[in-house]
Amino acid sequence: MKSGLSFLIAARQCEIAELEQLALSCELVGVIGRLVHALQKERGISNIFLGSQGTRFGDQRLRQVAECGQVEQHVRKHFNALDTQPDHVRNGARLFSRIAFVLHALDGLPGLRQRVDGQALSPGEATGAFTRLISGLLVVVFEAADSATDPEISRALVAMFNFMQGKEFTGQERAFGATAFASGHTNAGHQQQWQHLIESQERCLQVFSDFADPGVLGEWNANQPGDDLAELERLRRIGCTPHTGGALDANLSQIWFDCCTHRIDGMKTVEDLLAANLRLLCERKIAQAHTELRDQQATLDDLSRQEGSAASPDAPTHYGPQLERSILGMVQEQAHRLQVMSDELETVRTALNERKVIERAKGLLMATRKLSEDDAYKMLRQTAMSQNRRLLDVAESVLAMAAYL
Amino acid sequence: MKSGLSFLIAARQCEIAELEQLALSCELVGVIGRLVHALQKERGISNIFLGSQGTRFGDQRLRQVAECGQVEQHVRKHFNALDTQPDHVRNGARLFSRIAFVLHALDGLPGLRQRVDGQALSPGEATGAFTRLISGLLVVVFEAADSATDPEISRALVAMFNFMQGKEFTGQERAFGATAFASGHTNAGHQQQWQHLIESQERCLQVFSDFADPGVLGEWNANQPGDDLAELERLRRIGCTPHTGGALDANLSQIWFDCCTHRIDGMKTVEDLLAANLRLLCERKIAQAHTELRDQQATLDDLSRQEGSAASPDAPTHYGPQLERSILGMVQEQAHRLQVMSDELETVRTALNERKVIERAKGLLMATRKLSEDDAYKMLRQTAMSQNRRLLDVAESVLAMAAYL
Repeated sequence: MKSGLSFLIAARQCEIAELEQLALSCELVGVIGRLVHALQKERGISNIFLGSQGTRFGDQRLRQVAECGQVEQHVRKHFNALDTQPDHVRNGARLFSRIAFVLHALDGLPGLRQRVDGQALSPGEATGAFTRLISGLLVVVFEAADSATDPEISRALVAMFNFMQGKEFTGQERAFGATAFASGHTNAGHQQQWQHLIESQERCLQVFSDFADPGVLGEWNANQPGDDLAELERLRRIGCTPHTGGALDANLSQIWFDCCTHRIDGMKTVEDLLAANLRLLCERKIAQAHTELRDQQATLDDLSRQEGSAASPDAPTHYGPQLERSILGMVQEQAHRLQVMSDELETVRTALNERKVIERAKGLLMATRKLSEDDAYKMLRQTAMSQNRRLLDVAESVLAMAAYL
Repeated sequence: MKSGLSFLIAARQCEIAELEQLALSCELVGVIGRLVHALQKERGISNIFLGSQGTRFGDQRLRQVAECGQVEQHVRKHFNALDTQPDHVRNGARLFSRIAFVLHALDGLPGLRQRVDGQALSPGEATGAFTRLISGLLVVVFEAADSATDPEISRALVAMFNFMQGKEFTGQERAFGATAFASGHTNAGHQQQWQHLIESQERCLQVFSDFADPGVLGEWNANQPGDDLAELERLRRIGCTPHTGGALDANLSQIWFDCCTHRIDGMKTVEDLLAANLRLLCERKIAQAHTELRDQQATLDDLSRQEGSAASPDAPTHYGPQLERSILGMVQEQAHRLQVMSDELETVRTALNERKVIERAKGLLMATRKLSEDDAYKMLRQTAMSQNRRLLDVAESVLAMAAYL
């Protein structure tokens, strides 16, 4: 019969196994970040390539496609190395289902690039396809963050996911602004949409700031000097505030693009630091858990030697009084520690809820209004913009009104 | 390289593995229910045995100890059969840590019984020891409910956990009332405490009613005929409402005890039905998941034969157009289904949050006020009673005021 002691140790071993699996997920998140970055760049370049009828960025595009191909192989290798034994992965069903979507979208990349090559689709269509793939990759990161069982690692993953999502909104803003400036004019609808991208971006970066450790925050602040931010905000003001007749200086398109690219490249440095810290954190946690398990075992061995009783997990369950008290103390300490961890985890995870609420509202609209995913999201965003409310608040209202839909 | 298709199938296999593990947890929950019932009975009998200075219930007690011993062996066998491989159990750390506590408490049972035998402790002390063990067993059930990944099974487990917890409050009310009547008098403090047990019980049974399926609810209603309820409420009214001088008829003690025992035995029938339904539900879900996986595989085989392309998970990722569309459809359908399941799960799980909020508030008081777990709980309950608020509301206020504590 297994004793209480053997379950005490099994619980600790489960913690270690969870941490080791989490470390693999964190590795994956880092590599996905690199692919997202490369695809964001290819999306921007393809957009200009198509917008200029193939006269601009032809060479850069080919170089970027090659760069993407390399990082993609890296991501595929990581997917491939994942343990897909059904018993072995926490949150496996959701994670694997998301990966299935990403792999399917990656399989479609050569076809997409061929159509960009032949200028067989509009800049908007190409951007849409890249954006869907990137969003699929970010969902994989989200699932990794959502399944973390250690509160400290969960904090780091929440910071990471929100930073990556914020960076993606920055990329979308770059594309949106470049097209707006290049077209030479704007209108109230475009300005609202632009504003929306800025707000979404700032909300993600706010969550990132709330959860990132001081070292990363320092790097992030150093990374965004006042001069650069002033230039960004000046261009945003020109693009986003109403002008007579909505005229925009088309020459600002390139300046805007460069300003945003500079910002995004800076963000990549911060993201790399986040990924490196995440790796170190996982290593530290795993080493710590191993040490604690060893210490626990040593204490038990010492006591059982002193009392002449057997503290091996499979021994009969009659220990000396001191050993008895020690085991009870360890059991209580472990239960308490796990409870505290689970409470902290719940606090951290509320930061992930915003996305879940929006996804749920979207799902509800899709089901009740027979809308596509894109249209459901547009409807939510449109309502948020026209009522000047946050997307989250609108999503919450939608869910609260579910019975009336 | 693994294809998107292989991850689609791996996701489904993970679902099946999660269901199979859940089925084991549900089996365990059923057996734990039997042990809780036997221990509740032993607690009541020991209480009367000690209260009567060993003159009453001596034989019943020995029979009940033997009965408990048999069921305990059954539970131990189930614990023993659990797969404690670190990688294999979802929520393993928390579940095993709770089991470690239970096993430790079970190891202490012979010593406890010896002291009851020798009348070396008060009825209150004996009751306290049994109550802690039962509460430890119920926490194992709670962890099983908390780690369920299928919303339908989660609903059934939430109903089951709340029914078991409600039944335990009924058992505590039986003991409390029996002592109150036997003592021949009562006071405002006792009446408040009695009231509190009734309210806790009713809240659990309300959650049970919200989550149980109609068949079980029908059995529950048939199980509690009006006559029995009227008698229960009449005795409660006598025990709980202020009398001149607080005098109680000591002869009502036995009548009260029998009335409650009748109620508790009836609850056991409902609990057995809940356990049996839970088992059937798990079997049905597992069979269904296997069928769906087979159907999916068959569709893919058919299509690949028609198109002459390979749809095996490890084949190259270039499929014919129809197969391509089918795979995308399946990937999207799976992601959507998992999302819907996760949303439903979240809704069901909010029912488990009440306990978590109270546990968190208790932990906060223990840490900031250096209280024992029991004293922290008493402090919360005392505040709830004196302010005439629900325990949950008080716990939420405590958490909201965390910064001031």
